[in-house]
Amino acid sequence: MIDVGIVGGTGYTGVELLRLLARHPQARLRAITSRKEAGMPVAEMYPNLRGYVDLAFTTPNDAKLKDCQVVFFATPHGVAMSQARELVDAGVKVIDLAADFRLKDPAEFERWYGMPHACTDLLEESVYGLPELNREAIRKARIVGNPGCYPTSVQLGYAPLLDQGLIEAGHLIANCASGTSGAGRKAEVHTLLSEASDNFKAYGVKGHRHGPEINEQLRRIARVPDSRRNEVSCLFVPHLLPIVRGIHSTLYARLNSAGQDADLQAVFEAFYRNERFVDVLPAGSAPETRSVRASNTVRIAVHKPLPDTVMVLVVEDNLTKGASGQAVQNMNLLFGLEESLGLDLVPVLP
Amino acid sequence: MIDVGIVGGTGYTGVELLRLLARHPQARLRAITSRKEAGMPVAEMYPNLRGYVDLAFTTPNDAKLKDCQVVFFATPHGVAMSQARELVDAGVKVIDLAADFRLKDPAEFERWYGMPHACTDLLEESVYGLPELNREAIRKARIVGNPGCYPTSVQLGYAPLLDQGLIEAGHLIANCASGTSGAGRKAEVHTLLSEASDNFKAYGVKGHRHGPEINEQLRRIARVPDSRRNEVSCLFVPHLLPIVRGIHSTLYARLNSAGQDADLQAVFEAFYRNERFVDVLPAGSAPETRSVRASNTVRIAVHKPLPDTVMVLVVEDNLTKGASGQAVQNMNLLFGLEESLGLDLVPVLP
Amino acid sequence: MIDVGIVGGTGYTGVELLRLLARHPQARLRAITSRKEAGMPVAEMYPNLRGYVDLAFTTPNDAKLKDCQVVFFATPHGVAMSQARELVDAGVKVIDLAADFRLKDPAEFERWYGMPHACTDLLEESVYGLPELNREAIRKARIVGNPGCYPTSVQLGYAPLLDQGLIEAGHLIANCASGTSGAGRKAEVHTLLSEASDNFKAYGVKGHRHGPEINEQLRRIARVPDSRRNEVSCLFVPHLLPIVRGIHSTLYARLNSAGQDADLQAVFEAFYRNERFVDVLPAGSAPETRSVRASNTVRIAVHKPLPDTVMVLVVEDNLTKGASGQAVQNMNLLFGLEESLGLDLVPVLP
Amino acid sequence: MIDVGIVGGTGYTGVELLRLLARHPQARLRAITSRKEAGMPVAEMYPNLRGYVDLAFTTPNDAKLKDCQVVFFATPHGVAMSQARELVDAGVKVIDLAADFRLKDPAEFERWYGMPHACTDLLEESVYGLPELNREAIRKARIVGNPGCYPTSVQLGYAPLLDQGLIEAGHLIANCASGTSGAGRKAEVHTLLSEASDNFKAYGVKGHRHGPEINEQLRRIARVPDSRRNEVSCLFVPHLLPIVRGIHSTLYARLNSAGQDADLQAVFEAFYRNERFVDVLPAGSAPETRSVRASNTVRIAVHKPLPDTVMVLVVEDNLTKGASGQAVQNMNLLFGLEESLGLDLVPVLP
Repeated sequence: MIDVGIVGGTGYTGVELLRLLARHPQARLRAITSRKEAGMPVAEMYPNLRGYVDLAFTTPNDAKLKDCQVVFFATPHGVAMSQARELVDAGVKVIDLAADFRLKDPAEFERWYGMPHACTDLLEESVYGLPELNREAIRKARIVGNPGCYPTSVQLGYAPLLDQGLIEAGHLIANCASGTSGAGRKAEVHTLLSEASDNFKAYGVKGHRHGPEINEQLRRIARVPDSRRNEVSCLFVPHLLPIVRGIHSTLYARLNSAGQDADLQAVFEAFYRNERFVDVLPAGSAPETRSVRASNTVRIAVHKPLPDTVMVLVVEDNLTKGASGQAVQNMNLLFGLEESLGLDLVPVLP
Repeated sequence: MIDVGIVGGTGYTGVELLRLLARHPQARLRAITSRKEAGMPVAEMYPNLRGYVDLAFTTPNDAKLKDCQVVFFATPHGVAMSQARELVDAGVKVIDLAADFRLKDPAEFERWYGMPHACTDLLEESVYGLPELNREAIRKARIVGNPGCYPTSVQLGYAPLLDQGLIEAGHLIANCASGTSGAGRKAEVHTLLSEASDNFKAYGVKGHRHGPEINEQLRRIARVPDSRRNEVSCLFVPHLLPIVRGIHSTLYARLNSAGQDADLQAVFEAFYRNERFVDVLPAGSAPETRSVRASNTVRIAVHKPLPDTVMVLVVEDNLTKGASGQAVQNMNLLFGLEESLGLDLVPVLP
Repeated sequence: MIDVGIVGGTGYTGVELLRLLARHPQARLRAITSRKEAGMPVAEMYPNLRGYVDLAFTTPNDAKLKDCQVVFFATPHGVAMSQARELVDAGVKVIDLAADFRLKDPAEFERWYGMPHACTDLLEESVYGLPELNREAIRKARIVGNPGCYPTSVQLGYAPLLDQGLIEAGHLIANCASGTSGAGRKAEVHTLLSEASDNFKAYGVKGHRHGPEINEQLRRIARVPDSRRNEVSCLFVPHLLPIVRGIHSTLYARLNSAGQDADLQAVFEAFYRNERFVDVLPAGSAPETRSVRASNTVRIAVHKPLPDTVMVLVVEDNLTKGASGQAVQNMNLLFGLEESLGLDLVPVLP
Repeated sequence: MIDVGIVGGTGYTGVELLRLLARHPQARLRAITSRKEAGMPVAEMYPNLRGYVDLAFTTPNDAKLKDCQVVFFATPHGVAMSQARELVDAGVKVIDLAADFRLKDPAEFERWYGMPHACTDLLEESVYGLPELNREAIRKARIVGNPGCYPTSVQLGYAPLLDQGLIEAGHLIANCASGTSGAGRKAEVHTLLSEASDNFKAYGVKGHRHGPEINEQLRRIARVPDSRRNEVSCLFVPHLLPIVRGIHSTLYARLNSAGQDADLQAVFEAFYRNERFVDVLPAGSAPETRSVRASNTVRIAVHKPLPDTVMVLVVEDNLTKGASGQAVQNMNLLFGLEESLGLDLVPVLP
């Protein structure tokens, strides 16, 4: 059994982690911290956990996180990087669900998150936690930066094409849409039901934090060095859906001559042949967000609507594969467990 | 033309007032105040008003409300009662959309709203603004307390039965449900789309502020003096609907012997025969909230599911007939205009 | 391993059964029939099942249902009663998710379902499948009539009060609301998103098929013989919620003198002390439908809003505890398995 | 007063036409036909029209459409083209809300709508009814083909750029999303609330009927002759939103060198300076579908996210500007009325 701690579990990635870990056969939940809610039983805030999670929130001091084997940070950006050093030194593995260990370039981090990075040495050591594209490095990591929800879907959609060199990578367009849970459980006007329901809009149109993460990772997938960084450029445009869970990405690229000749369906099926959580749909499909609801599965369909154009459709549950499910998948890798342990979730439909 | 001011127009009752007044043939919007948003064009906060409302929010000082003929308070509870005296003394009519002039009993007000009433003399003079049940008094009023959204639907549903003495009034049950806009445009967790959507629950189960308002008015309709106040008692249970606009009330009562013999459909049709905004549906109907969306209409169906039981179904738009539309209806009465002026709104369906 | 067949699995109770049985450690899915879709892989209709269910729909002839140990009927009303005899004679247990074995009185069945009952002898033998209230009989049954979704919630809400004789049972009011999945996966106008979304209404106001089921069972719980059937009468009023899954019942009753003196919270906690799937919430609670989403749990809160009145709030997932989850619970009882096997589902929230 | 007839008014474009015409100061509604519902009062099917529309549906024979001055076809594709000849010969103006007079090329019509065109001479004479781009022709027309909902938003978004020659028109991408009312009031499984709610997906991925309409019109706007038709090509990808009303189009194009140097905001503001129903938002904006709900307004924002890329965001109400509102706008033009008569609708928000 792995002793698990969670820092800051009052948000949606926290409750989703708890939903998954409560049934994980090898995880033993030891502590969950919240300064503000210390003393409150977790199940009082999240009644779905009644009967499954008996813990109460504790203060960080009482949590004895150093006695855990792994600590998940389900906190705002900036928290994990200030506490990771102490945990790592104590031999505790760290999985951060925020952005502290996503961007390898500290200057980029500072630009987009408005604070200097607090531990650039750990950042350098840390591993980007997208198992399908980075599995071996994750197995050996001490710190995992769990990917952003949008970047997960965009990378998995473009990866086979970039890996095989089939597209003109300098002009990618990722038109994405997310449910409101991606904005977290924060009291804000723009995600009130009265504002966001029966409505649809683009947002972050002047630039969104997931843009640099997407571009940094797409370059890595395409094996393009920083000196030629302009060769990979993805325009990322997020939209806000009036649903709770789910991300849908509609990805566009122009095919180069190799791409125009390729059997794209075969390329995708081969690339993901052994992946438990990536489902390449039959040719001609259009995946629905609900087909992966509450599961760790990503479904992908690849289309060639014009002879020189590829369109990839990707769906994921932003709280599961886009956050907490992927974090558990990373935990399984870190501890040498079967990668899908505790994640064998049939999506809930309807 | 009537010069109109609005105090505190940043909430949903504010934007709904603006939607209605922008097209009202006899209203000239002079000022709308918001300390916090002073200087911001109204249409920047509410883009639906672009091209219809040119005003910017102003501070109360700059608003020159005493030059208006009527001032609407679309403010939190407690604001109108502190400013009404000065306006009334200057000859300005006041319509309060909050609760300051709803409860006639100052002790009840203090109990439910947590503050002493600031002007009990004006409270005594003020008139409860439900035109269908209080029209003549409103015409002569200086201060109108605009009814709560739930109480409007509950009173209009029970009024014919209480007026005619057909039910056992001591055990009424009002099972009601409202869209989230009734909670206002406040940053709160429980009305986030991620919380309130795809969900349903009762709330205020330990007592809701609209309960005493309902009971005070039902007693008045039943002509029961305070000394026999227990003869009218309504258990009011609100529920939160995952929709933006709309209230649905399912009202239950046991029929007394007169009621069991009565033709209830005829009673309702007669009672509301001349009412422009109350539509008694044919026998056997079940009104939908969307059938009154964005309009000032209330639709009512009366049923006798058991020989000794009456059930009344009532729908209204909580922001229109339940708030701002009713306020405009009251303004029309105050100024001797046709009662439906500016309110001739075809409900939006689908 | 139990060999399982499903007749008519193309509807929502069918896909929910498959979601549950796909992970059930003791169930082996042998066949699923659909005349219309014979040959189509189940996962093509329900993409959430990709990777979990490999079966294709077959014709009833090809299904060899008599080789199964249990057959679920997820069919329209009237199908199970025409096929049950043959299966039962072959030693196959039958669980009907439709209404064929819910109403004990064949005349009532004919009145509400518009067809004569095809096997009144089996009807007499059959057992009403609400485990919490009928567990021992279910264990020994050959045919189980799985309860309706609404009746499950209404019975579990009133049972402690009726069992203990604490209420005036002749005037019960069950004000209920259900998500649209309760209407099934049928192409109908009134449950289109364009019709049912952003909307709320009562329906079935002239009488709903679940009314007689509720009353028949409440009489049984209250141990009232048919000769005194008027002593138990429940007015059941369903409403249509703009959500997919979930039932919320708001139950009202007047307390008799015993009830007025009783500690109702203690009564409920005692009654359900050993029940795995019934969660009595702390005093003062208001359960939300989402707190049981996609799980077999029912949550109940009991209130005494007036000295002589009790209000019970009940939530369930209509497709799980209200249909397929309860059917699996019954299967577990029929085969002597642990009652919660395969049903240990953490509700999905948000 | 203009005498108006409607053929086939039982769908959503029909009820929206009625909502608008009921308040139009110069329209007198004479007849509305439905073979299937003949005799039923319109307000029985659409309760929002109670008190506003007294007509009942009639058979086409009883409707005396030739006595009208204008007839709207709110029918399935193929109906208008079979009845237009007779009406036009009788001097009646025809506005078809279906596709019969949208595509100028009869071969394209037959390919996409699966039937030969029944009156190619009238097709040649007919005018494409997008007033902002075709106003003078509409004024003189006898038959107007009312544009599709998606094509309206896509054309208005690209028009300033194509008209001014600022983009590489051979690789346009229109990523669009629509509420379910665009699919009409038809009993179909895929638009049930249980299917389409809490969900998002692309659809029509193998080709959608609005694709050829978009391309034909964009060529016209760009003044590209058929011989060089490949110079304009737009990849159109629709998605299904879980809302009732609203279309959101996210349009992408690469800027040519003229476009890279242009002040795009100024280009759009100049192009639409005198348009009553097109609102160019301030730079940096992201329009919301709800900001135009139930109105005839289109809101547009233009962005330059990369030096060589333009992105245009467009919102409209698919039933109003995307269908019935635009049809009324066309009627106003046909009869020399003020173009906005009866269309002065403040959008409903929230």
